[in-house]
Amino acid sequence: DAELELGKQLYMSPGKGGCATCHGETGNEPVMPMYPKIGGQTEMYLVNQMKDYQLKKRKNGLFMSMEIAMKHYSDEDIRLIARYLASGNFK
Amino acid sequence: DAELELGKQLYMSPGKGGCATCHGETGNEPVMPMYPKIGGQTEMYLVNQMKDYQLKKRKNGLFMSMEIAMKHYSDEDIRLIARYLASGNFK
Repeated sequence: DAELELGKQLYMSPGKGGCATCHGETGNEPVMPMYPKIGGQTEMYLVNQMKDYQLKKRKNGLFMSMEIAMKHYSDEDIRLIARYLASGNFK
Repeated sequence: DAELELGKQLYMSPGKGGCATCHGETGNEPVMPMYPKIGGQTEMYLVNQMKDYQLKKRKNGLFMSMEIAMKHYSDEDIRLIARYLASGNFK
C-alpha cells in the first residue's frame, strides 16, 4: 500500500520533524519514559493530537517540543503518518 | 500482584469514573474512533495525562468529559490505574 510506505517515510525522515527520534522506529519505543507510545494508536486520535499541537491547542506536558516537531507537516503528511502508525503493523 | 488487581478494579468500576465505559475493558477498545487506546501505554504518560485533566491543564479534544471522569480519583488511584494499564497484560 503506497500510502503506508509514504507515511512510514514521513514518520522516519529526520529532515522534517523526526518522529522516530523520540517515539522510536515502531512508535512504541519512546526514548523517555514520559513520552507516549503511538504505534497502533487510533488514527483519528493521532490526527487530532498532531493538529492540536500544530494549532497550539494542546498545551500540557512536553507540548513545546511537539509544536516544533509538527511545524513542517501538511495536513496530508499528518493524515499519512497517522494512517501508518494506526496500521499497527509493528505492534 | 495485589496492586494490579486494585488498579483493574478502579479502572473497571463504573461508580467512580468508569474508564472502561469509554476505553473498553482492555483499554484498547475505544467506543468512539477519536478516543485513544490506552492499554499498554507508558505508565508515566498515563499518570501525567490523568493529572493534567484533573488539574485542568489539558484543554484539547474531549477534555471536558475527561475532566468529569477524573474528578473523584486520588493520586494513589491514578498511580494504580496507570500501573494496571501500562502492565499491558491485555495488549
